[in-house]
Amino acid sequence: MAEEGKETSGCPPASPPQSTHFLQDVIFHGKFKLLKTLTPEENTQCQHGLYFQDGQRHVDYILTYHVKRPGGARHARHTSRLLTDNPLARSLRRGPLAAARPGQQENHPRCGRPPERAGHPPAPRPSTPDPELGLQTQSLDDQEDDKRSRREEFEKNLLDMGLELEKDEDVKTPGVGFLKIHAPWNVLCREAEFMKLKMPTKKMYAVKQSSSVVEKINSLISKVLEPLHPSVEEHKIKNIKHLSYTFSREKQHLFNLSDKDSFFDSKTRSSIVFEVLKRTKCTKAKYSMGLTSLLCSGIYTAAYPLHDGDVSGEHAEPNDRKLLYEEWASYSVFYKYQPIGLVRKYFGEKIGLYFAWLGLYTQMLIPASVVGVIVFLYGCATVDDNIPSMEICHPKSNITMCPLCDKACSYWKLSTACGTARASYLFDNPATVFFSIFMALWAAMFMEHWKRRQMRLNYEWDLTGFEEEEDHPRAEYELQVMQKSLKKEHGHGSQRKEKGKTDDEKLTCRDRLPAYMTNLVMMLLMIGVTFAIVFGVILYRISTKAALHMSSNPITRSHVRLTVKTTAAIINLVVILILDEVYGAVARWLTVLEVPKTDKSFEQRLIFKTFILKFVNAFTPIIYIAFFRGRLVGRPGSYLYVFESYRMEECAHGGCLMELCIQLSITMLGKQLIQNNLFEIGVPKIKKLIRYIRSKREAFQEEERQKRLQRYEIDHFLEPFAGLTPEYMEMIIQFGFVTLFVASFPLAPLFALLNNIIEIRLDAKKFVGELQRPVAARAKDIGIWYNLLKGVAKVAVIINAFVISFTSDFIPRLVYQYMYSPDGSMHGFVNHTLSYFNVSHFQDGKEPMDPLHLGYGVDICRYKDYREPPWSSTPYEISKEFWAVLAARLAFVIVFQNVVMLMSDVVDWLIPDIPKDISMQIHKEKILMVELFMREEQGKMHMMESMQASTGDKEKCSSNSYPIPVPRQRTTPQPNCNNANNV
Amino acid sequence: MAEEGKETSGCPPASPPQSTHFLQDVIFHGKFKLLKTLTPEENTQCQHGLYFQDGQRHVDYILTYHVKRPGGARHARHTSRLLTDNPLARSLRRGPLAAARPGQQENHPRCGRPPERAGHPPAPRPSTPDPELGLQTQSLDDQEDDKRSRREEFEKNLLDMGLELEKDEDVKTPGVGFLKIHAPWNVLCREAEFMKLKMPTKKMYAVKQSSSVVEKINSLISKVLEPLHPSVEEHKIKNIKHLSYTFSREKQHLFNLSDKDSFFDSKTRSSIVFEVLKRTKCTKAKYSMGLTSLLCSGIYTAAYPLHDGDVSGEHAEPNDRKLLYEEWASYSVFYKYQPIGLVRKYFGEKIGLYFAWLGLYTQMLIPASVVGVIVFLYGCATVDDNIPSMEICHPKSNITMCPLCDKACSYWKLSTACGTARASYLFDNPATVFFSIFMALWAAMFMEHWKRRQMRLNYEWDLTGFEEEEDHPRAEYELQVMQKSLKKEHGHGSQRKEKGKTDDEKLTCRDRLPAYMTNLVMMLLMIGVTFAIVFGVILYRISTKAALHMSSNPITRSHVRLTVKTTAAIINLVVILILDEVYGAVARWLTVLEVPKTDKSFEQRLIFKTFILKFVNAFTPIIYIAFFRGRLVGRPGSYLYVFESYRMEECAHGGCLMELCIQLSITMLGKQLIQNNLFEIGVPKIKKLIRYIRSKREAFQEEERQKRLQRYEIDHFLEPFAGLTPEYMEMIIQFGFVTLFVASFPLAPLFALLNNIIEIRLDAKKFVGELQRPVAARAKDIGIWYNLLKGVAKVAVIINAFVISFTSDFIPRLVYQYMYSPDGSMHGFVNHTLSYFNVSHFQDGKEPMDPLHLGYGVDICRYKDYREPPWSSTPYEISKEFWAVLAARLAFVIVFQNVVMLMSDVVDWLIPDIPKDISMQIHKEKILMVELFMREEQGKMHMMESMQASTGDKEKCSSNSYPIPVPRQRTTPQPNCNNANNV
Repeated sequence: MAEEGKETSGCPPASPPQSTHFLQDVIFHGKFKLLKTLTPEENTQCQHGLYFQDGQRHVDYILTYHVKRPGGARHARHTSRLLTDNPLARSLRRGPLAAARPGQQENHPRCGRPPERAGHPPAPRPSTPDPELGLQTQSLDDQEDDKRSRREEFEKNLLDMGLELEKDEDVKTPGVGFLKIHAPWNVLCREAEFMKLKMPTKKMYAVKQSSSVVEKINSLISKVLEPLHPSVEEHKIKNIKHLSYTFSREKQHLFNLSDKDSFFDSKTRSSIVFEVLKRTKCTKAKYSMGLTSLLCSGIYTAAYPLHDGDVSGEHAEPNDRKLLYEEWASYSVFYKYQPIGLVRKYFGEKIGLYFAWLGLYTQMLIPASVVGVIVFLYGCATVDDNIPSMEICHPKSNITMCPLCDKACSYWKLSTACGTARASYLFDNPATVFFSIFMALWAAMFMEHWKRRQMRLNYEWDLTGFEEEEDHPRAEYELQVMQKSLKKEHGHGSQRKEKGKTDDEKLTCRDRLPAYMTNLVMMLLMIGVTFAIVFGVILYRISTKAALHMSSNPITRSHVRLTVKTTAAIINLVVILILDEVYGAVARWLTVLEVPKTDKSFEQRLIFKTFILKFVNAFTPIIYIAFFRGRLVGRPGSYLYVFESYRMEECAHGGCLMELCIQLSITMLGKQLIQNNLFEIGVPKIKKLIRYIRSKREAFQEEERQKRLQRYEIDHFLEPFAGLTPEYMEMIIQFGFVTLFVASFPLAPLFALLNNIIEIRLDAKKFVGELQRPVAARAKDIGIWYNLLKGVAKVAVIINAFVISFTSDFIPRLVYQYMYSPDGSMHGFVNHTLSYFNVSHFQDGKEPMDPLHLGYGVDICRYKDYREPPWSSTPYEISKEFWAVLAARLAFVIVFQNVVMLMSDVVDWLIPDIPKDISMQIHKEKILMVELFMREEQGKMHMMESMQASTGDKEKCSSNSYPIPVPRQRTTPQPNCNNANNV
Repeated sequence: MAEEGKETSGCPPASPPQSTHFLQDVIFHGKFKLLKTLTPEENTQCQHGLYFQDGQRHVDYILTYHVKRPGGARHARHTSRLLTDNPLARSLRRGPLAAARPGQQENHPRCGRPPERAGHPPAPRPSTPDPELGLQTQSLDDQEDDKRSRREEFEKNLLDMGLELEKDEDVKTPGVGFLKIHAPWNVLCREAEFMKLKMPTKKMYAVKQSSSVVEKINSLISKVLEPLHPSVEEHKIKNIKHLSYTFSREKQHLFNLSDKDSFFDSKTRSSIVFEVLKRTKCTKAKYSMGLTSLLCSGIYTAAYPLHDGDVSGEHAEPNDRKLLYEEWASYSVFYKYQPIGLVRKYFGEKIGLYFAWLGLYTQMLIPASVVGVIVFLYGCATVDDNIPSMEICHPKSNITMCPLCDKACSYWKLSTACGTARASYLFDNPATVFFSIFMALWAAMFMEHWKRRQMRLNYEWDLTGFEEEEDHPRAEYELQVMQKSLKKEHGHGSQRKEKGKTDDEKLTCRDRLPAYMTNLVMMLLMIGVTFAIVFGVILYRISTKAALHMSSNPITRSHVRLTVKTTAAIINLVVILILDEVYGAVARWLTVLEVPKTDKSFEQRLIFKTFILKFVNAFTPIIYIAFFRGRLVGRPGSYLYVFESYRMEECAHGGCLMELCIQLSITMLGKQLIQNNLFEIGVPKIKKLIRYIRSKREAFQEEERQKRLQRYEIDHFLEPFAGLTPEYMEMIIQFGFVTLFVASFPLAPLFALLNNIIEIRLDAKKFVGELQRPVAARAKDIGIWYNLLKGVAKVAVIINAFVISFTSDFIPRLVYQYMYSPDGSMHGFVNHTLSYFNVSHFQDGKEPMDPLHLGYGVDICRYKDYREPPWSSTPYEISKEFWAVLAARLAFVIVFQNVVMLMSDVVDWLIPDIPKDISMQIHKEKILMVELFMREEQGKMHMMESMQASTGDKEKCSSNSYPIPVPRQRTTPQPNCNNANNV
């Protein structure tokens, strides 16, 4: 290693170029300039680290590791961070006992990551301060040796696989070694064949335009939409498509290999190298370690492919990354379509699908917000025609209501609730029923559209025929299995040693039971915490309200409702935001505990848990308001009390719909503003600042060394790619806000739309500028997210049905109109919903202290409920109207749910999953392919025939498996032995 | 043709063998013996027509056509059948006008068939009698010439494709020419490559057994189940699997090609030939015709692959067909598993999947029937403890009920309904609620299990990675498109002629609008007919009952209910059976009208229509009884009348559940017994008999000619394969009976199970013995049927919820028990459900003629409803109890539906779609494959290296795409230019 270290020290010749650049500046991520210009030959020679030192071979992948610097102590600081948590780590890791301590593995936070993460653990910042150092230098040195020898073995195996390597150790970035990996042409071909990559062939064909009228309309539409398309070339040449075929070295003649450098683009090359890296094992220790295990145990510290070049700056040549930065990751193009093809070309299919999905979702939100705004405006416009609120607001209405709280409150006039009643109408009118049906169908349409878009992308991206495969087991899983089999071996003595193979073992349910139990308990506990907090907020509301009611200050009292509502909603929001972060961490921890076998199952379990926790967290307070608040109040004379002193809260007159709406809007807007903008924009900015300050400190300390950073060094300082889970999760929660309670908040789609327009560009900026380039992953679909979306859409139907029928006054109004109204109008509805209460029936000590508050004595007060009047034979019993209304509400739920579900299914069934033109093109491609092959075939035949002409018939006949006697009954008179020839 | 006819006249030499066999007998399908033994050399030479005349080349496919016999008149009879429907047909078919008469095409019933059918139109029986003949002999001759020339062209194209042909014209089967097709090895290889067939490679691996305990249990279980497995080899060698890889000629070394004859089995060979046949066009006329068009226009009369051999008889050598006949298509093995692997091997994946599905369904019915029987027995056992029926039957109960019909009937005592009440309890007890939840989950489990089984089969059958592709357009569709473009051409003159290409055209919505409208109208009409018939039966019941009540005969009167019920149910059954056939035909006709583009879409549309019609047909009467009967009765004093004279029917006391049960059992049993056994067993027997008599008549007429039938001649006389649609449809309707109303008929699964045990073997017999061999079709799943099953299961949840809550008395009982019962028991329930009626309120003329029938005068009679008593302030109004019960019923529906749906989803989510062992094996296979290739790769490298050793380094370096300068920083000290070599 010491010898190699000397060999691998930099650009040719190792130090001279550095000294040449000594006083020059480089643009490091647009932040600080150190180096400005390069001599032309240097530029072409090293190309900013995108190529090997020979300037020819492209760097396809980078692995980084710690190197022990000659400087000694300073370096120990870097490496020690990884290992100080357990000084015994080295010996443990070497022997079988290593496996016996899984906890040690779990101490590394980066080992419990989804697939994308596992590949890219956060590169430990070179300046991580570590207080305990110098003590274990000796053992650390041993450790380093061990690691180095493993690396050596792994690198030897990589060379065996045909990869080409180059090292750049400790040159400009102190303490970090870079292993540059290049895949030569033959390796690329071989792996492309293994991976069954579909590549474009030479054969092109024109994508058929349908009949002339449609064609004209299409061209017109595309002309109109022209400014909406990003100025990226790819979308223009849509009429011609290359026929694609699974790459195979035997069929190389099919492909256009004139430019072997660009046949496989950088994304493909890096994913090919990653595939090889995953497969390659290092088996020096008792068990074999793949790349993920090596990363986990700190033998390598990071693994990432390189970005294509700089996004800005003067000497950034045009490259895909720059193009993306300009045409995609910029707020100035917010109104344009995304260049999805380019995104896919640069980041791979998985990320491409995410952005395509996000784009479609945002697009679909446009009609939803338009309708939502119309519905809202309809409410505003018709509020004056609404008879119930007119009746309430009418100055002559003098209905005396029962007090809203014990003792402190007194009787009040219904007309004082005029404002609330009018406001309620905005969200509780017939249009909202229509809107929630519309949104349920919208959700179904969205899912269908996405399926179609996905199919189209699959076709355009040549993914038809690709099958996602079971991934390699995760490093932690292998470790656990190892441990288990070792335990068994110890237990059984050596009797099972001949079997030996660890891959026969697996973790059974019994091994996992403790983890599962912990999971269950923790999940229930977390959900319990959410419930407790919601209950706490309720208590806060009740008690504050009671306290404020008691207050002698009349202004305070008049603003009671608003104050309490707003503060409670804000408390809720803060709690939700905090718990969101906590739950994310808890879900990850629980999933690590479970030790899932593959990265895919890890990701799925993690997503599932996070989804449940975050959903419960976000929607519990809302569900409480929608369905429970105001229902468990009791009635005057026998109210329901919490802790025997606080009455349960009621809704304002006119249903809880308005309060639901307030809660929804505060939660949704707050979440979006704070989480997205503050967290997503602010936190990276702060991080960057910190990094900048740190690196500046270091940079100036070692200014001499760190002059002109290579591409791989620049990328090393970027954040590693952490998976798409958080992005998707955020969107699915938003989807929940848009669909679940849309009946009560028709503006939700609008807010979501506004948020997403920013979100797309925000994410784009992050991916292009601030993250290490992710390894391109192939994916046909968005996986579990689709199911979650579908689940949310399903639940939305039920919840909306309940909101309309139980939270809003829609059903009672209908029932009144058709069953009780004397003239079929809504006149008298308010009176009908109010029951009578004889004030003499108040419990002792609960009657209002100031009964003459209204200026007159009250015998009978009214309250909102369907109960028998005091003069009936069964006073205060639930009345027949109550049951009738309840039956109507329930019937509405059944009808709504089933009709909407049926309509969704019909939408699902009417819209074919595969767009017609795509299925036709796939068919056409198949025919073209067969034609192509047949022509080739016949070409060969001709060649053979002409060859045969000289060599005679004998040889050719023997190529057939069995000797065919000269046929007597053949329809062709030709006496030749092979019919296939007469072409 | 005349010349060729001479050439293609039979076994070598053409007539001598026939004269040799003159007096011998052949076993023709076990029916009539004509010919018994063959000399050994003859046997091997012709092998009963399984091989070409050279005895070497296997006959992979047969096309048949009409030949003009020298005899003249007799022959004209055969061909004329096809053409006499339109004497102008020939000229029309030749020119562009042909297309202008689509009706002509539709006259051929076989052209409107699903994919399997299209390939196999019914071979016209040689003896179809035709009254008009001889008249058009001249035009028929022209016709024949035209057809012959088309055939010639088609056959030339087939030869061009590399197929080998042999003709056998008019030899033993008069008037029928056989075109035998053989695919030589190179064609098989080529097409296998195009079709991306996965074939087993030489590489084998052991399928891993899980841990030792599980292994032991598994081996124990398999030992116990040993007698249940069919004695077919394939299931025994499960521990070793061949690695499969997509066949490719370049990778031939991977495959075990030692026996080229059996590498592709007969099923694969025939499907390969069929693929070629479909692709080959004959373009002599203005538009190109594929095989389906040729079959449609009668140029060929039939197309089928050959069976493997005889199923019985003395000289039937062992073959797969015989094995299937013995081990599968026999009632004696009814208790065994099916040899699905063998079925797939012989019939292809599509049919294999059907039988696998049917097998799983039958298997899953076992637990369902056990639980169903237990539930039924529970009802029987607890009938005496049921308080409501005890109360009714109690001799002291003297509740006087209001008359059941106007005038003729009188008051009656509730205790006379004792029997009905007790019987009702059998189907209306708490266990049925449990059972319907159980069955909903059962359905979910079944679907999940099927998904898993399907995945397993996909893996075992090497279908992973196979993608179903858009099919070729159907002949009718092409014709229609032709017609359209011709019309346009005529309209525009020749201005569009340069465009010319017909494949740019397609049928737009506008072209299809008339067909769609017809479809819609006809579907509505058919559904209307069903409704009308149901209504008719209701009228029958009402009027007959009224008439019988009038009858003076007391015995008649006492059996009124039973008589009416039974006759009505039988009438219903008969109507259902007749309409089933009618609807099948209507659906086919409507689908033909629609001219769907591909066979797949034809099949889907047909299935969809048939499904709707048959479902509506089967379930309308049942739904009427379950949900409408007895609800629209009105109340005493204001009954509801049909035609102003007949009162609507009521249910017997105790709910309509029992009547529902009777109707269900009669419909289900009747359908199964009559449709399956009579139609499926009886009709073929009769058909066979007719065929036998006919062919005997002919056979004896031409005994000299028809001596020893070849395999292809035997198969020619079998029924063509008509698709799986009827089989699936029957099963899905049964699935409907098993799940939809299972709450009222817990024995349904048992009856279904008994039926299916027979059904499997019945179908098997049909496929093995009585049908032409179908072309093997690859399929990954059961397609649309899965969605239909899923839909039925979904609807079942809702219907069961409604049956339990509305048809049964479950909810009223619960409500009584928890809301009204004074002591929490069921005592008094009967009284609670009955309302009071003051007999003085009868309308004039409706009061009973014999008011003293019971022996005493009646002032107040009771009727079953929740209404206010006559003495309340609002007499006969719906009471509060009614609304409370209604609300409870509706709430139950909501809870039941959502809980069961949630549980189904949980089942769906808990059971992974891909069995774990399969996903592990797929992963393992992928690794093994890569390993295999890498080893090969390294082998090549070594070879190249050793070659290089002699030729020097220069050549090899140039194989890399760009010249690599000698690297300076390489980690490997090796100064070689290619790193990939140091293996």
